[in-house]
Amino acid sequence: MEKISSRNNEKIKMAVKVRTSSACRDENSVYFLEGARLCADVSEYVDITEAFFTEAALKKYSAEADKVIKTAGKSYLITEEVAEKLSDTKGPQGIFCICKKSTADLKVETGKKYIALENVQNPSNVGAIARTAEAMGIDGLIINSGCDIYNPKTLRAAMGSLQRLTVIETDDIVKLLTEAKEIGIKTVAAVLDTDNSNMGVLKAESIICIVGNEGNGITDETAEIADEKLKIPMKGRTESLNVATAAAILMWEMTNLQD
Amino acid sequence: MEKISSRNNEKIKMAVKVRTSSACRDENSVYFLEGARLCADVSEYVDITEAFFTEAALKKYSAEADKVIKTAGKSYLITEEVAEKLSDTKGPQGIFCICKKSTADLKVETGKKYIALENVQNPSNVGAIARTAEAMGIDGLIINSGCDIYNPKTLRAAMGSLQRLTVIETDDIVKLLTEAKEIGIKTVAAVLDTDNSNMGVLKAESIICIVGNEGNGITDETAEIADEKLKIPMKGRTESLNVATAAAILMWEMTNLQD
Repeated sequence: MEKISSRNNEKIKMAVKVRTSSACRDENSVYFLEGARLCADVSEYVDITEAFFTEAALKKYSAEADKVIKTAGKSYLITEEVAEKLSDTKGPQGIFCICKKSTADLKVETGKKYIALENVQNPSNVGAIARTAEAMGIDGLIINSGCDIYNPKTLRAAMGSLQRLTVIETDDIVKLLTEAKEIGIKTVAAVLDTDNSNMGVLKAESIICIVGNEGNGITDETAEIADEKLKIPMKGRTESLNVATAAAILMWEMTNLQD
Repeated sequence: MEKISSRNNEKIKMAVKVRTSSACRDENSVYFLEGARLCADVSEYVDITEAFFTEAALKKYSAEADKVIKTAGKSYLITEEVAEKLSDTKGPQGIFCICKKSTADLKVETGKKYIALENVQNPSNVGAIARTAEAMGIDGLIINSGCDIYNPKTLRAAMGSLQRLTVIETDDIVKLLTEAKEIGIKTVAAVLDTDNSNMGVLKAESIICIVGNEGNGITDETAEIADEKLKIPMKGRTESLNVATAAAILMWEMTNLQD
């Protein structure tokens, strides 16, 4: 395994840029991951072009490291000092990957259940929604603007779910919803300004449920195109739920795992 | 209104200490709040001993400031520089309060529904659970160790719900659950190591549902004393839900607002 001991090594500088710059991620169609468990998990689903390990990590997380080394294009041994430069966290585990973004051109399909995020900004919220979506058995995540799903904070909060779920990124949610309606997919917008609190509308077999931005909710244009507007019933003086909480309750009702 | 223009003023130094030190909060039985909306909201429920306003905030948030000034023991005009020292956030709104902690010795009651948090550490999780609890119509929150509910991050995430909800703090959750069972309250522990995924157990009229620490879940001792262990049904390779997400789904099933 080739050794890198300088923080100014070009590979390391590039990896840090991938971690911190969404423009760099877009341009090269790659993203950065860290953590023994997360890297080992995604090695089953994604193309790892480069992997970096500290000596200590190779010992402490040998099973995870082996999995990554087997599939990675190239593996490097790094010093603790280099690991600190690479890491986004305090006390890094010492395992890092550069992964290729999925380039599949995915489309929504009938018979499936989707949660759509319109301009959700907080990486922790997007990651949490992905984690919950997988747990609830949702078929796919639709992302329209908002935070970069390849942001390291998002990927960490998602705990691998973003790599396992079908993720459809779109620049034009109205067009996507229009096309979905044409093939018989029901579209439901979670909003606050409706009297409809009948969660039964979520039971459709083919459905896209849309949640919106943390501060402003769903745009009028998107809410108007949806077949139904729905407000999660609430008590007390709370005016809204956190978007990840709202999405969790909507997905719970969509997939009915309790039955 | 008395004016404070020095960052080294004793009142200001004390307020910062209240914000940053849970020991100081405990000792003086007070806590720190910031934000126009939040301070105005809680002024209806809690005893504000001191309030601090910037000139700009008095103009921009005059309705909120008026509400706070009316009930606060003492109000001070502060400079922007002092506001920056007081604030926990970037770009503070310029309204700050010192509030008295509630000293009511509350006990669990039959006919009510509670969510109990055993050693939940993340302030955002605790705050989010409080916000959801109020929205779901839960009667009270039971807190056993974990993060200080008067942590500014917790208070911000709760958006006032921690002041409006019944909050019972206990050092001994096992004792509390034992006494609750004796008066006929059903106790349900949300765990991962059970085959019971019957969410119907949450429909009891008198109930305490317990969620646990982010990494380790509920302690064995607490899980053993509960009438039922319950696992939220999950699909995919997700091994667990975020604790705030899990609590949201449990509370949603407990209160049945959709019916």
